[in-house]
Amino acid sequence: MAKLIPYPGSIRINVAGAFIVDDEITPESGSSNTPPLDSTLSPGTTLTANISNGQSSKTHNRDIVLPHHTSDVSHIAVDIGGSLAKLVYFTRDGDNLGGRINFTMFETENIQDLISFMSKLISARRRSSSVERSSKPDSRTDQHVYIMATGGGAYKFYDRLRKELDVEIWREDEMECLIVGLDFFITEIPDEVFTYSEQNPMSFVEAKQDIYPYLLVNIGSGVSMIMVSGPRQFKRIGGSSLGGGTLWGLLSLITGAKSFDEMLLLASKGDNTNVDMLVGDIYGTDYGRIGLKSSTIASSFGKVFKQRLESDEDDTDVDGPVHEGNQRFKAEDISRSLLYAISNNIGQIAYLQAQRYNLEHIYFGGSFIRGHPQTMNTLSYAIKFWSAGDKKAYFLRHEGYLGAVGAFLKRQPTGWGRRNSFDGKG
Amino acid sequence: MAKLIPYPGSIRINVAGAFIVDDEITPESGSSNTPPLDSTLSPGTTLTANISNGQSSKTHNRDIVLPHHTSDVSHIAVDIGGSLAKLVYFTRDGDNLGGRINFTMFETENIQDLISFMSKLISARRRSSSVERSSKPDSRTDQHVYIMATGGGAYKFYDRLRKELDVEIWREDEMECLIVGLDFFITEIPDEVFTYSEQNPMSFVEAKQDIYPYLLVNIGSGVSMIMVSGPRQFKRIGGSSLGGGTLWGLLSLITGAKSFDEMLLLASKGDNTNVDMLVGDIYGTDYGRIGLKSSTIASSFGKVFKQRLESDEDDTDVDGPVHEGNQRFKAEDISRSLLYAISNNIGQIAYLQAQRYNLEHIYFGGSFIRGHPQTMNTLSYAIKFWSAGDKKAYFLRHEGYLGAVGAFLKRQPTGWGRRNSFDGKG
Repeated sequence: MAKLIPYPGSIRINVAGAFIVDDEITPESGSSNTPPLDSTLSPGTTLTANISNGQSSKTHNRDIVLPHHTSDVSHIAVDIGGSLAKLVYFTRDGDNLGGRINFTMFETENIQDLISFMSKLISARRRSSSVERSSKPDSRTDQHVYIMATGGGAYKFYDRLRKELDVEIWREDEMECLIVGLDFFITEIPDEVFTYSEQNPMSFVEAKQDIYPYLLVNIGSGVSMIMVSGPRQFKRIGGSSLGGGTLWGLLSLITGAKSFDEMLLLASKGDNTNVDMLVGDIYGTDYGRIGLKSSTIASSFGKVFKQRLESDEDDTDVDGPVHEGNQRFKAEDISRSLLYAISNNIGQIAYLQAQRYNLEHIYFGGSFIRGHPQTMNTLSYAIKFWSAGDKKAYFLRHEGYLGAVGAFLKRQPTGWGRRNSFDGKG
Repeated sequence: MAKLIPYPGSIRINVAGAFIVDDEITPESGSSNTPPLDSTLSPGTTLTANISNGQSSKTHNRDIVLPHHTSDVSHIAVDIGGSLAKLVYFTRDGDNLGGRINFTMFETENIQDLISFMSKLISARRRSSSVERSSKPDSRTDQHVYIMATGGGAYKFYDRLRKELDVEIWREDEMECLIVGLDFFITEIPDEVFTYSEQNPMSFVEAKQDIYPYLLVNIGSGVSMIMVSGPRQFKRIGGSSLGGGTLWGLLSLITGAKSFDEMLLLASKGDNTNVDMLVGDIYGTDYGRIGLKSSTIASSFGKVFKQRLESDEDDTDVDGPVHEGNQRFKAEDISRSLLYAISNNIGQIAYLQAQRYNLEHIYFGGSFIRGHPQTMNTLSYAIKFWSAGDKKAYFLRHEGYLGAVGAFLKRQPTGWGRRNSFDGKG
């Protein structure tokens, strides 16, 4: 029955009975008023706080409970991207058999908070490990604490992390970690992968083993598209600089919104047709001959320029602030238009890449999506529209953590196995 | 020797000896201080004014002189897009044999100016036609004035044009006009089509007959991509809502710039690395394993969001204007970043479409380009980068007038032929 993953040195997780936590406060943390980054995700999202000051760390309750595994994992994995740093670590559920994988996020800008958080985790691990060693000398607890790091920040902040945390740091390739993490989620975790439709916003896809080839579209600050043809067989086939960072940057400039959640909230209330130029605005009707509907967006923000000019004609105070004209356009409408534009664009490029390499399954990962319905709807629609229903868009509940989980899984602590290896023992 | 184009009803132009005017004021117009839309085009660009009030009509000197044709063309062609209306009409050079095709542009918003301009043209034609008829009863002058119209505005403004101009209006399909116009420029007009490189910004490609298949990427407010496999054999294979309208709209919102020329001027002075997040900003170095250079843009505007947050931390006056933080970022840098982002994105999608349909030649048309070096450089670079030198980007000096010229050519006035048909007679 034993089925170990075939890469030496990789972590083996006993995923028998694993499930994703939906609505509780994690044991190690109190409650907090910090709004989570993913407050728009529904249903079943609640807050969890963490041992940091709660200022910049954003946690949520999508921890994965592993009721049947036997031992501790002392290493910590971190994926430090351009905007966000994602942390994955293991905690035991008290003295019982079982534990959970914890997921938490920091803004890369506040790297010091991440380091403090990790520092506390490491101290706690060293304490408990030394207590355990003295009481149970034959314990399988892994005493060696180290950090698995990936993402650009694993290189940029390498020296700082080593110096301030005084631990060994293993750096892992970002793309490889994304793939290892995604493979794990697809094959091992129930209720993780889903398709989106307005009728059924979360239609779960059963965990399966036969998954290749597929396309991973990872949307963080920027976008990477990775073709995966087998375990750890992958190639970055494209990408785009128009990603989450573009949306966050432009919307913070234009609307003054201070968080991505605020932007998503604005977008959910907006009407993009007040700023976008539709086919109907140009033609007064459909452009039937080539199949463009009247409601198709011909030009994102295409209505803004000429309306601004009009408003300037009425405005004789040319020395006034240049942004006065912005008042003509609602932050809500602008947010929705840009969210559509970026999502649509990623969807189209993803489709073209999938078409080119004959990939039927397209998984969307990265911190841009956050379970936001309009984003997933737009991405799903783009794939469906361009492929005429031929290709399928998949989403993940841990979309932002692919790289961090991949890094977490790449090293083998003591006493860990994977699904089936522990069947009948738990 | 006669070589007529094989579509009944199409115009036949005697293009023997045709050339593009580089640096003169057209005879029918005086000089003007109106800045042309394409003031950044070099070399050899000067201004021409026109018979309108000069407020919203933008003309330039890229008229095409036809020294060897024999007769008048009284019809006028107009391509009314979402943002700009492009007008093409013929004038004779005094009483001599020969004349020229005139090109001029209006903002669609100021449709009344376009109508006034056309109204004057029509009156002048009717006058001259009646004078000529009385003096030379056997003249080949076409007395019947009518308008060839294409673009969405041909539908949207149809009733208004008919009513106010009191002429017959022939509506033609937009995509077909683009292709007819482009075919004409590629095959008939010398020094029209060129490739761009920093070393040689305008390397002209000889006019040629063997041109199919090719991809036309037409960038106006939005983007259309059209595969052309033969004369009038074409299919719209894709497009993007991220086009000129997006750039104009977002930059007018953020920078307060009031014209596209102002935006291009800003862009030419900017440094996008102040707002874009580069691979080097994330990694501190290259990401060599997948071939991403340190200078590659990972996320357009990726630096803005976190810097805005920083600036807000210092700002306790939360009731102040939300756009204060914009002062951190220079309009020049923002303009350059967005110009890069939009151009790069179009270049990538164009490459993917060309790859998919195995098209080697990619022509960029539409009013977005305007001979702007950075735009052409980015589009050329994107095609070169993604195709590893396999595909080639071509530009046109009349890039914005493909549809209008196509509409102009679709009807056959009296006494017109095409290249070679008049050889030896002129």
